[in-house]
Amino acid sequence: MPARSVTPGPRDERGVLAARILAAAREAFAETGWAGTTIRAVARAADVDPALVYHYFGSKEGLLDAATNPPQRWLENIAKTWTTPVPELGAALLRLMLGAWADEEIGPVLRSVLQTAAHEPSTREKLRRVVEASLMGVSQLGVDEGDRTVRSGLVASQIMGLAMMRYIWKIEPVASMSDDELVAAIAPNLQRYIEGDIR
Amino acid sequence: MPARSVTPGPRDERGVLAARILAAAREAFAETGWAGTTIRAVARAADVDPALVYHYFGSKEGLLDAATNPPQRWLENIAKTWTTPVPELGAALLRLMLGAWADEEIGPVLRSVLQTAAHEPSTREKLRRVVEASLMGVSQLGVDEGDRTVRSGLVASQIMGLAMMRYIWKIEPVASMSDDELVAAIAPNLQRYIEGDIR
Repeated sequence: MPARSVTPGPRDERGVLAARILAAAREAFAETGWAGTTIRAVARAADVDPALVYHYFGSKEGLLDAATNPPQRWLENIAKTWTTPVPELGAALLRLMLGAWADEEIGPVLRSVLQTAAHEPSTREKLRRVVEASLMGVSQLGVDEGDRTVRSGLVASQIMGLAMMRYIWKIEPVASMSDDELVAAIAPNLQRYIEGDIR
Repeated sequence: MPARSVTPGPRDERGVLAARILAAAREAFAETGWAGTTIRAVARAADVDPALVYHYFGSKEGLLDAATNPPQRWLENIAKTWTTPVPELGAALLRLMLGAWADEEIGPVLRSVLQTAAHEPSTREKLRRVVEASLMGVSQLGVDEGDRTVRSGLVASQIMGLAMMRYIWKIEPVASMSDDELVAAIAPNLQRYIEGDIR
């Protein structure tokens, strides 16, 4: 994207300002949580007037909702895993998560979701939907729905626990292990949840 | 413990009031996180004067520290798992965690630790120490220390992920599975982290 190649019209400027506000909001929600974040502080960090934040997003709830919406590109990456052959699904789901956190657009969104889900029912609901969407690949298994949701939930418990240890709490040595080391260690466990005997 | 069998002296009263303040603090930290919790709100919930909270705990940091200190009884339960035979260690660690969350004294402490660890470095450090202590049982394995801490970290990633899904985010169906179902599903995966091939 060439910088300043054209003078931005009002529509472009709105997009630029909204993106700047959302980046500041993700940072604030991740740093201080839902209760500790104020529209005023977000506006200051984004170098805009607080009234503009209200104008664009309506309320603190609206701002959180916009800040934690998963980017379309990520949803497309998720959809690609739905057709992964079952024997490779554990590794594919783990690499999907590791790639998403490393992505400079998707990572901050995931961080703000996990940092606020504990205290905000609306984000928790979003987390639940993201987990469900991410694990649709498990639904290709020819098992009954109850069994499938249990398997998906177990996969989520491991992937989310890894995300908390690695990206939120930053507890060593897990936080510093390479992607390949993590896949070697964890993917076989996910694979057991996907197709193994879990009763 | 017989109620009101003796008239409490000042020392007993201090214990009763401190316990009431700590219970209110755990509730507040769990509900609204670190930034959203005020000494004033905790004092109101505990029905004491805010000055008394400062007198007992010094500051909001001191209150969080006291509210998130693991009860001695739990540390003793953890120590018991250190001598568990290796083939039973995965199930023992999982049952230790499930029992702790169900305990009416220990559960709220764990909840307040997990709810504030994302935003408070001091609680994160406490979480790290609790994780390390809980997993000392893994240290009986005759492997080098680097290998041991990786295995402990992987066990923690699964147990903590389960705790987040079940007790903090409450995502179904994992949140409603019975202890026995969870042990059947998850303990073999922990066991692989403890003694399996993870490279």
